[in-house]
Amino acid sequence: MAVNRPVITLTTDFGTRDPYVGAMKGVILSRCPQANIVDISHEISQAAISYRADSHTPHPTTTYVLASAATHFPPDAIHVAVVDPGVGSDRRSIAVHTPSGTFVGPDNGLISLAICEYIQTPAKPNDDIDGANLSGGTVVHIDRYGNLITNIPADSVPVGSAFEVAGQRIEGLSASYSEAVGKLLAIIGSEGTVEIAVGNGNAARTLNSTIGDRVAILTESP
Amino acid sequence: MAVNRPVITLTTDFGTRDPYVGAMKGVILSRCPQANIVDISHEISQAAISYRADSHTPHPTTTYVLASAATHFPPDAIHVAVVDPGVGSDRRSIAVHTPSGTFVGPDNGLISLAICEYIQTPAKPNDDIDGANLSGGTVVHIDRYGNLITNIPADSVPVGSAFEVAGQRIEGLSASYSEAVGKLLAIIGSEGTVEIAVGNGNAARTLNSTIGDRVAILTESP
Amino acid sequence: MAVNRPVITLTTDFGTRDPYVGAMKGVILSRCPQANIVDISHEISQAAISYRADSHTPHPTTTYVLASAATHFPPDAIHVAVVDPGVGSDRRSIAVHTPSGTFVGPDNGLISLAICEYIQTPAKPNDDIDGANLSGGTVVHIDRYGNLITNIPADSVPVGSAFEVAGQRIEGLSASYSEAVGKLLAIIGSEGTVEIAVGNGNAARTLNSTIGDRVAILTESP
Repeated sequence: MAVNRPVITLTTDFGTRDPYVGAMKGVILSRCPQANIVDISHEISQAAISYRADSHTPHPTTTYVLASAATHFPPDAIHVAVVDPGVGSDRRSIAVHTPSGTFVGPDNGLISLAICEYIQTPAKPNDDIDGANLSGGTVVHIDRYGNLITNIPADSVPVGSAFEVAGQRIEGLSASYSEAVGKLLAIIGSEGTVEIAVGNGNAARTLNSTIGDRVAILTESP
Repeated sequence: MAVNRPVITLTTDFGTRDPYVGAMKGVILSRCPQANIVDISHEISQAAISYRADSHTPHPTTTYVLASAATHFPPDAIHVAVVDPGVGSDRRSIAVHTPSGTFVGPDNGLISLAICEYIQTPAKPNDDIDGANLSGGTVVHIDRYGNLITNIPADSVPVGSAFEVAGQRIEGLSASYSEAVGKLLAIIGSEGTVEIAVGNGNAARTLNSTIGDRVAILTESP
Repeated sequence: MAVNRPVITLTTDFGTRDPYVGAMKGVILSRCPQANIVDISHEISQAAISYRADSHTPHPTTTYVLASAATHFPPDAIHVAVVDPGVGSDRRSIAVHTPSGTFVGPDNGLISLAICEYIQTPAKPNDDIDGANLSGGTVVHIDRYGNLITNIPADSVPVGSAFEVAGQRIEGLSASYSEAVGKLLAIIGSEGTVEIAVGNGNAARTLNSTIGDRVAILTESP
């Protein structure tokens, strides 16, 4: 009659060459020996470097990676994020308990953004669709395959829509990445949002895109 | 009277910057909270990039890494491989139950190859030695130290054999990597197959070798 | 009434592309199925490459990463280090049981150094302060942010001291990394030793520093 061990996930910019991740796991296991520690990513800042080094708002990729992974965990999991350019200052940490999990992180807006933009969306997919959303969204993450992940929810895309990104027009949604080898395509990604990809290729390189780029939805006038 | 937790290993090309590995672990822990998830590698495609991008057969490195690690796990472990250029297409997944573990992965030959080439070999080391094997093998993996890992089993190498790779002749087997500092040597690696190395050096760079290169066994005429 | 699982940490230079880490975990789980395996780092050699490739003494970064992480674990944890240029030779392994944890590794001085320089320090912080320590220390690690981690314990720094590194003078200790944006600063790092940093910058690049560089403590004559 085993009791399940509490799941604690880690999302940091610590990398894996330094002792910081190990030290953090040591502290957790010292205080909670039965913890089941799961790495989400320790490479957050690498992805964020080219964005806005001096920004005081959380990088969209941090928010995206944390929230996208977290939504797949059991609701009693605890998600700890340590991604904070203000480290060592007197900025506080916060903990937020939600029906989709408990989030612990810096008090810089990261947790609120993650919850508002991603965690609540699956629960009420039609609530925040307004004119702004219908007209498009932005690239919030570029994955290792060069796919451009947007914050446009699948169900905010009218049937028959086209997309425009970096001056290129893409007709409709594809059903698989292999549908258009070597060509630009739009597809609903694993997290339920629109992705811009190149079949067997790298969309970020093809389009010279970066995080924050606009993706427009083009709908036919009725 | 603790019951051991089921071991589930992961071998993917997801990398560690994106939310994909975290999401996969979240799904597993949601369905099987007592799972003991172990990462084998998430850097598979990095190693495979220079091989054959358009190949529809599994890359030898994927097969090698999966099978080499898997053979060291308890036989009730479940090994999940997600390395599939055809992702998003309608290619099915398969699960294969063997005495050395259960393998789950894409139905593209990866699992069969891993089992045939590596998993069964230790159990019957003399069964598949034929003329082809005796004459040599191929480089199936280049590790981070630049060692060329071949698929030539130790017990298929006659005593007194020499090896030829990239036009270079290597006399006999060395007992340790440090035996011939700065020089080419052949050695039986940790997985029981022939490796080509340079003592304290990098054989792949020295020989300008890539995965798929032939390694010949040269035996004296009796 | 769950019994806690034995914690086994791993510190290696295996990287994460090869099957070696997975194989090691498989062997551990085969012999001790209830083990709680925790990765400290598998990127040790990457950090050490620029140091002394032909050195037979352990690299200071290896010692630092292992010891810094290990001190945060429960005292019954077992810390396994596999970082050994003499791999494959007949060098023995050793195991050392200490009140701060059990260490297993190559018999090349790594374990002794880790214990002498780091593990015992917190227990008796004033015992080894002598003239040599007061005059400074060396850079033992450069972390991913470019901070220069020294082996100078916080409590060996007299109030009002300045520091000199690479010909640059730094006045006093800062309380946070954000205190001097774009400027050199000295700070007590998370492991309790002096760090040289650049606020929101990269001290290693700014100073063109490498591991082994001297950091002097300059004290006022009374």
